[in-house]
This record gives sequence, structure tokens and C-alpha cells, in this order.
Amino acid sequence: MPYRPFEGQNCSIARTLAIVGERWTLLVLREVLRGRRRFQDIRRETGVAPNILSDRLSTLVEHGLLRRERYGEHPEAFEYRPTPKGADIAPVLWALLRWGDRHAAPDGPPVVVEHRACGHDAAPRMHCSHCGEPLEPADVVVRPGPGAAAAA
Amino acid sequence: MPYRPFEGQNCSIARTLAIVGERWTLLVLREVLRGRRRFQDIRRETGVAPNILSDRLSTLVEHGLLRRERYGEHPEAFEYRPTPKGADIAPVLWALLRWGDRHAAPDGPPVVVEHRACGHDAAPRMHCSHCGEPLEPADVVVRPGPGAAAAA
Repeated sequence: MPYRPFEGQNCSIARTLAIVGERWTLLVLREVLRGRRRFQDIRRETGVAPNILSDRLSTLVEHGLLRRERYGEHPEAFEYRPTPKGADIAPVLWALLRWGDRHAAPDGPPVVVEHRACGHDAAPRMHCSHCGEPLEPADVVVRPGPGAAAAA
Repeated sequence: MPYRPFEGQNCSIARTLAIVGERWTLLVLREVLRGRRRFQDIRRETGVAPNILSDRLSTLVEHGLLRRERYGEHPEAFEYRPTPKGADIAPVLWALLRWGDRHAAPDGPPVVVEHRACGHDAAPRMHCSHCGEPLEPADVVVRPGPGAAAAA
């Protein structure tokens, strides 16, 4: 289990990072969600060392974000496919992308996320699920939720 | 500089992780964005070791996400305040929070993000900036952007 100290915190951010916060893991998910499914393809695109990639893929399978599927027998070969739980990490990647596009892309965004339905650049942005308005950091307050008691 | 191999990738996700992807950094930002500004308070809430916290705060100041401000002279004491660039990391934290609430909160969400303007749970969610509709992973395609040439 990675990031053991994070798991003890009664915080959904810490618990998410306990699973996807290790170095390279989010880049591995970036590749799988973009459709690269095979070990060598993921390795080439990310530049991650084979032993680390192997470890990260195992963790993601163990936690149910990826499924490991055999696609060849001689030699044995596997693909990694996102589960719905794994695909659900996309908003984390979009948020990282948006920050990087704003603050760490001196030549402009390397990629653009396009919304199929409307045909325009999506520039994914956080909105309030209730009223639908865009959310800025100053627009929210945080209060204890139903799972807060577990902290006691 | 942390995460050196990530910086070479022409990818806004990788470049963001090069700055905020090190272990503990996002939890440190969580605390500062919730209003905890002093070293000992951040240390206590996160459980991070002092030498690591010191390193992470320095990195965040160096990259312009936090400002270091003196609040005492005898003894010398500092507060860490988010800059607009630092506050802009909030959507990353919201995305991590939402994933954790869905997939790693067996007792329910430990905290709820409330939208001041509408007074309801915001449950921050990604929408298309152009048409305003909610975005699911299957709703988008990625294509090269203006900064893509830098990859050549």
C-alpha cells in the first residue's frame, strides 16, 4: 500500500492521494485514459522505469482503477483498461491540465480538450453541481460532512 | 527542482505535477487554502515531518504559489499565504476530493464543500467552459494545441 500515512487521515483528498498520489501514477492514468493500454506503450510515452511502471500498474489494478486483460498467450501479454472507477480520475487530470495550461505553458497549451457535443474547446472548469455556476476558490466554504464522525 | 523527469514532457499535467506532485505538497496546499498559515499548524494538521514540510513550502514559494510573510520578529516567525497562482490549485483539490468521496469514503464524505452564493452543497464538478454542460470522460477528445510544436 502506498502513502500509508495519508490513509490515516479522515480526508477524501488524502485517501485519493494514497492511491493515485505516488510519483508517476497520474501520468500512467493519463496514458491509459488516452487509450494506451500496453506496458511498452505506456512506458515509452511516460518515460517511467519498467520496475516503477510495473508497481504502479499493480497498485491501480489492486485498487480497482484498471483491469488487466490478456491479449496474447505466446508470449503472454496483457493490456490495462480503465474501470469506471479509473475513468473517474479524468477530472483530476483535467484540473492538473488546466493549472498547467495557465501557469506552466509558456508556448501555449500543448493539447486542447475538445467537447464532442458542442464541438468547442472544453477548457474543463469546476461548476457547482447544484446551481450550475462556475466555482472560484473564494466561492466555497468547507463544513463537516456525514463522514466527519469517523475522525473522532 | 522536484520531479525533474516530468519537466521534460511537453504536457501541462506533467509540468503541474513537477511543481505540486511531490508527496505531501497537495496536502500542504489543502491546509494553506483552508486558512492554516503557520508552519506548526500545517505540520500538525498534515502529520508531515518538519524537514519535508520545510522543503515543500520552499518549493511552493520558489514557484510562486505561496508568499512567505513575517509576522513576528523575536523570535522570527513567518506565515505562508496563497498567491492567485496557488489559490488556482483549488480545482485540483476539489477533483481529488470528489473522487475520494465517491470511491474512498465508506462512512460518507468527511467534509462538504458548500457554495456560498446558492447555499447548497457544491459537489464541484467539471463542466465545459464553452457550453456549460457537465463533462464526462467519454465526452471529450484531445487534440494538439498551440504549444504542441514545442514537442518537436
